[in-house]
Amino acid sequence: MADQEAVKLYGMWSSPFSRRVELALKLKGVPFEYIEEDLSNKSPLLLKYNPIHKKVPVLVHNGKPVVESLVILEYVDEIWKNNPILPQDPYERAMARFWGSFIDDKILVTAKKVHFCLDKEREAVILEVCEQMKMLEKQLNGKDFFGGDKIGFVDIVGNIVAFWFPITQKVLGSDFFTSEKFPGLFKWIGKLQEIDVVNESRPPREKHLAYVRAQFEALKIAPK
Amino acid sequence: MADQEAVKLYGMWSSPFSRRVELALKLKGVPFEYIEEDLSNKSPLLLKYNPIHKKVPVLVHNGKPVVESLVILEYVDEIWKNNPILPQDPYERAMARFWGSFIDDKILVTAKKVHFCLDKEREAVILEVCEQMKMLEKQLNGKDFFGGDKIGFVDIVGNIVAFWFPITQKVLGSDFFTSEKFPGLFKWIGKLQEIDVVNESRPPREKHLAYVRAQFEALKIAPK
Repeated sequence: MADQEAVKLYGMWSSPFSRRVELALKLKGVPFEYIEEDLSNKSPLLLKYNPIHKKVPVLVHNGKPVVESLVILEYVDEIWKNNPILPQDPYERAMARFWGSFIDDKILVTAKKVHFCLDKEREAVILEVCEQMKMLEKQLNGKDFFGGDKIGFVDIVGNIVAFWFPITQKVLGSDFFTSEKFPGLFKWIGKLQEIDVVNESRPPREKHLAYVRAQFEALKIAPK
Repeated sequence: MADQEAVKLYGMWSSPFSRRVELALKLKGVPFEYIEEDLSNKSPLLLKYNPIHKKVPVLVHNGKPVVESLVILEYVDEIWKNNPILPQDPYERAMARFWGSFIDDKILVTAKKVHFCLDKEREAVILEVCEQMKMLEKQLNGKDFFGGDKIGFVDIVGNIVAFWFPITQKVLGSDFFTSEKFPGLFKWIGKLQEIDVVNESRPPREKHLAYVRAQFEALKIAPK
């Protein structure tokens, strides 16, 4: 493969956003070079490729950068058509886009607030996240994956709920996300874990736990 | 046309988001029934069709609702393929999606803050919006429209910059958005105004001005 055609992914091991792109490429069997970014000392290439947001992930294909994980997922699905990520039906595609944006614009925006509050305020945030997760869970409606019997767009975007939220919960010493409260989401997580490339595209648990714990400690509002 | 196949748009006259969908449908020549919503007294149908966000616009097609303006624009483009809104090339499509999200997630999120601050704080917000608008303007790069010589996705999403920002500026008594400061964007606005359906898909100026003025007054932080 000429370098010009090479696929490169600039990512960060604990970022659910770059892990989404990694997962999509692996599901499609696209060979790519992975470049780990140190976000405390961003590389000149990252800044060149993503001058607006200066964030990972960046996918570079044919020498041209694509940024923002949801935009990259659509791009990957349009370039490599095998193992489609988005449904083929326009209405189902619209629903997948809606729920993908719901995860990023609602659930994550709410969830991020737990970093900046404590006690009753934090409990209120967690309650709000749980209400939003209930709406998401309802979409599974007995199916293995959000799109039906195969992993797709919403499952990939939902990686943060499946594999990042349990880590945060553990660090917080909370029990908001249990199989009793969210049987549908837990069944879905089980199905995700049956897929090898899903397990390859998430951080190692202990390293991830230590990282998130250190993040909360750095904020000086870590729970006892 | 059977009622089942009818296209209905639930919107609100001063909402740039429902005006985007109106414009897209008109550009494609899709006949539709428009239903004006009173957002202070939302209709049971709006709440039924958009139970999650409870907002306009809602597009109902074949009896099924699609919500969120960017999601609706993609849907409209996939269902009615004439006069494409998104570019055909996957990389150009990714860029259009990126800049559409930039307008909503960056420019608008910043701009909304002017409603909740005054004086130096407001000036700082306006400065930040201007920096983001400069980034957007750079993408025009001498072209008539963001996608080239025809109106497309970013132009439609950018309706708020073209036709809502000047109204806000007038109400604020500000001069942040002038043809001297943004020659590219003003040339683009001129090109937009040459298109009849663009002019049909924006609020009447005086009514719009009075509405925005009343909004700021209701916040009790209106400028003198």
